Amino acid sequence: MRFQVWAPRASDVVLEADGVREQMRAGDGGWWWAEVPDAAHGTDYGFRLDGGDPRPDPRSARQPYGPHGPSRVHDASRFTWTDDRWRGVPLAGSVLYELHVGTFTPPGTFDAAIDRLDHLVELGIDLVEIMPVAAFDGAHGWGYDGVALWAVHEPYGGPDGLQRLVDACHARGLGVVLDVVYNHLGPSGNYLAEFGPYFTDSYRTPWGDAVNLDDPGSDEVRAFVIGNALRWLQDFHVDALRLDAVHALYDERAVPVLEELAAEVDALAARLGRPLHLIAESDRNDPRTVTPRAAGGLGLAAQWDDDVHHALHALLTGERQGYYNDFGSLATLAKVMTRGFLHDGTWSTFRQRHHGRPVDRQSVPGWRFVSFLQDHDQVGNRATGDRLSAIVSREQLAIGAALLLTGPFTPMIFMGEEWAAGTPWQYFTDFSDHELGKAVSAGRRGEFAGHGWSVDEVPDPQDSQSIERSRLDWTELARSPHREMLAWYRTLIQLRRDQPELADPRLDRVAVDFDEDAKWLVVHRGRFRVVVNLADGSRQVPLDGPAARVVLSSKRSYAVSVGVELDAMTVAVVEI
Amino acid sequence: MRFQVWAPRASDVVLEADGVREQMRAGDGGWWWAEVPDAAHGTDYGFRLDGGDPRPDPRSARQPYGPHGPSRVHDASRFTWTDDRWRGVPLAGSVLYELHVGTFTPPGTFDAAIDRLDHLVELGIDLVEIMPVAAFDGAHGWGYDGVALWAVHEPYGGPDGLQRLVDACHARGLGVVLDVVYNHLGPSGNYLAEFGPYFTDSYRTPWGDAVNLDDPGSDEVRAFVIGNALRWLQDFHVDALRLDAVHALYDERAVPVLEELAAEVDALAARLGRPLHLIAESDRNDPRTVTPRAAGGLGLAAQWDDDVHHALHALLTGERQGYYNDFGSLATLAKVMTRGFLHDGTWSTFRQRHHGRPVDRQSVPGWRFVSFLQDHDQVGNRATGDRLSAIVSREQLAIGAALLLTGPFTPMIFMGEEWAAGTPWQYFTDFSDHELGKAVSAGRRGEFAGHGWSVDEVPDPQDSQSIERSRLDWTELARSPHREMLAWYRTLIQLRRDQPELADPRLDRVAVDFDEDAKWLVVHRGRFRVVVNLADGSRQVPLDGPAARVVLSSKRSYAVSVGVELDAMTVAVVEI
Repeated sequence: MRFQVWAPRASDVVLEADGVREQMRAGDGGWWWAEVPDAAHGTDYGFRLDGGDPRPDPRSARQPYGPHGPSRVHDASRFTWTDDRWRGVPLAGSVLYELHVGTFTPPGTFDAAIDRLDHLVELGIDLVEIMPVAAFDGAHGWGYDGVALWAVHEPYGGPDGLQRLVDACHARGLGVVLDVVYNHLGPSGNYLAEFGPYFTDSYRTPWGDAVNLDDPGSDEVRAFVIGNALRWLQDFHVDALRLDAVHALYDERAVPVLEELAAEVDALAARLGRPLHLIAESDRNDPRTVTPRAAGGLGLAAQWDDDVHHALHALLTGERQGYYNDFGSLATLAKVMTRGFLHDGTWSTFRQRHHGRPVDRQSVPGWRFVSFLQDHDQVGNRATGDRLSAIVSREQLAIGAALLLTGPFTPMIFMGEEWAAGTPWQYFTDFSDHELGKAVSAGRRGEFAGHGWSVDEVPDPQDSQSIERSRLDWTELARSPHREMLAWYRTLIQLRRDQPELADPRLDRVAVDFDEDAKWLVVHRGRFRVVVNLADGSRQVPLDGPAARVVLSSKRSYAVSVGVELDAMTVAVVEI
Repeated sequence: MRFQVWAPRASDVVLEADGVREQMRAGDGGWWWAEVPDAAHGTDYGFRLDGGDPRPDPRSARQPYGPHGPSRVHDASRFTWTDDRWRGVPLAGSVLYELHVGTFTPPGTFDAAIDRLDHLVELGIDLVEIMPVAAFDGAHGWGYDGVALWAVHEPYGGPDGLQRLVDACHARGLGVVLDVVYNHLGPSGNYLAEFGPYFTDSYRTPWGDAVNLDDPGSDEVRAFVIGNALRWLQDFHVDALRLDAVHALYDERAVPVLEELAAEVDALAARLGRPLHLIAESDRNDPRTVTPRAAGGLGLAAQWDDDVHHALHALLTGERQGYYNDFGSLATLAKVMTRGFLHDGTWSTFRQRHHGRPVDRQSVPGWRFVSFLQDHDQVGNRATGDRLSAIVSREQLAIGAALLLTGPFTPMIFMGEEWAAGTPWQYFTDFSDHELGKAVSAGRRGEFAGHGWSVDEVPDPQDSQSIERSRLDWTELARSPHREMLAWYRTLIQLRRDQPELADPRLDRVAVDFDEDAKWLVVHRGRFRVVVNLADGSRQVPLDGPAARVVLSSKRSYAVSVGVELDAMTVAVVEI
């Protein structure tokens, strides 16, 4: 087989395959190549640059001994797929479920996750979103420290395991979203800079060197990124990618890499005959992320909408620290439900500047915004990784879920949320480098020390107890009150599917009435009204027409002449 | 009068006005204020932050002793304008003239420039573009080291002088474009960082700290920039701004500062009832710079088009170093004449990556691209500041001028170009700080040392001979061959005005025939053909119809049955 590697600055590159050295030959544009007839699937190899130690292949498909070890040839086409009849899932109308392979099940593998897919089917999930699986240093971590971006984390089951999981999802009618990180690489096992100008010092990211997307040599770096994205969609049959922190993909070119990627993915979708989606995590509140390219946008399918989260979280918890500062009122919730963003050109106290740009409600459907009540960041970035269920009451959780699952956006559930899991989800790492590990532990604790937390209160990410505590406990499902919460989520998702008006993505059709003092809120969804009473006592909430029927209620509620009466801290879906 | 200053990090601010200290009071948003009844136009003042030495006002209107000294109150409304009937100049159809106040005339002042305006009127200029006049350290410099951005360089004549110059331009029917620099500040006399977060370390520019346009506190920095821009248009009656290096205005906000500025300027134009234009210098080759905001662009009026310059320069000089590498053929000239950019998504050898984005020729008129055969950068950034006239023959200059002035773009002439000035235009500075001066001298020479220049060959920017050599010598105008070149420019501009087809900005109406080997080129401009013979001998150049008339010819040319016959190195405008 032919080995190839881009190493434009090297003057000598030697391949070492199964212990045998082979001089590589310089081709065009900084690419080197060598033919090794005996090499095949399973061959271990690395590249020696200018006489240095062997390094893993930047495009390594497999790192059986972790990112510091040799690469292994892996032929992705050997897998026997059973999803010939798979036709993909549209994003519009779908419900997403975010899971972390390492903590979703006790073994923390792709295969163990397969055993839990029926739970997701029964819950009513359409697309499973898998947190990053690119190989990173150590046995466990969130995945945002990936360094071998083309390889699949071996402890999860490697590339074969990921193929089995995707195939099993498709067999159950579940699509797969894969979280991919292109804005930075992890701090351990990143050898890319030895190969070429993968990084730039023109920009700074909070997590390390910025990836070179517009400096000299950036064509190949962009090809590396785009090729990686297409690999998951083609070779692993993945249906969508969640692009981590696209606001840190600094790129001043006239054609930004995101636009280029989106065009490539659209072309691939046309070729494959099934829908493919790009979903951005973006902190920019810029609707042009999801505006079609023909209208001057980047043309991604969707983006995460933190403002929806913040509005719900701050309302239910009463928290106002950090980025929750501008959120928490019913008015802010009403704005995000009808406008997509709270910050659409408004002052952001957290950012100490104005922020965002208005969404054109006529042209941008709400399904282009992924909304959530919890996600890995919003839970895991808290000092102790406490879930919303540890902070608010069951009644409040029920209200949050109802607002999320009857809204105009694409709802996403974070694993375990559906049963109000009692386990936290903490920050955990497993860096093999002792010094780095110490720095990460100290950094994590220092981050919260300024916010009133003592060292002992913040779990040590390098302590294996942090991941052990974070594993879902599936035995909870058999018990109250988890069983009841799961039933509530199932019912809401079923209702969303049965009543298309509750999934209507047209933002200009959403209306919200509320009374900040009396603490009630009504969301208009076609002929339905989602009525919330956040007060300590029962409330009569006025409606714009006589309530014909209470379709669903978290506690007691009944129609009265002027509207609907609800118990304290209750949500009801009412048909008028 | 009331003094105000933004100093959000200061805990104490004292105004010192005409030697008297006045405690300032903290207002909203980091602003401080003080009322001083006796202060008025002419009062010298500064601000002491937290007990430090007095600093000039970031918004100082006048720095009579340079940027390190006190500010002086200047009431711009005291000027008696005579331009009540001025209605502005459209950019479409105009010819621009770039001048540097310090070297345009022997005294190097606004008033001395006024004495030369009639020359520009006779030449046929519509808009005079003035290189930056914001106060900088030292008596002379190009102006891109400005630090007191609201003040006008005192050695030029200060704010009153600029008002007199603009008024005098308007009196002669000339509009004024002012070059403004917002992407960085000069290295000497910049006290802004002491006042607030004017700069960011998130991005790097080649010239120093990037201006903070998207980090905390950036609202006020953007207001500083936008307020500055509007000041020139309002208080100084300027008609347009040339925005230096907009690609270095790093700004990840959903509404970039350029878009915000363009909207403000459009609103001001509507209020004032005269056209105002923003012209970007942009290295991005991104047509969205001049795309209307409604279509997803920034909505600036125009941008400089270096590709047109490079195509003409490389063709005429044969130079291929640095950024000329991809230019020089007739094919590249044909592409820029018909497409606006050579690099519209193509490989750029200089940048070592693909570059640019195609211009939509149906929707973007060519007048939105300012084109030039020479400008301050392309002349002054050469090791010895040699003008094109020092490199190529008179015949070649005549060809370049004809292609420039019959093209679909907005042509701009660099001062002296019109008479093939014999004076160079070199890089010159006058930093008062000895160490900085030495570093600038060494840096300049080091820049060219790597390109085969010895130290002695590169003029020392700090040596006053560098500016003295760079002053225009107006006595040349009386002599051959300068007189003849001036006549050629005048004739071409007059012809462009008389024959609107030669100014037609529609890029999709331009066609170019050429023969790379035979070295001829024909540009179709309505019923006119601009025919160029670049060969050493006379040539018969075929046309697409019989030549009815040779309208203009730089040397001998005459119609023949198959087209037109031209002497060696000749350009003719032919009507068919």
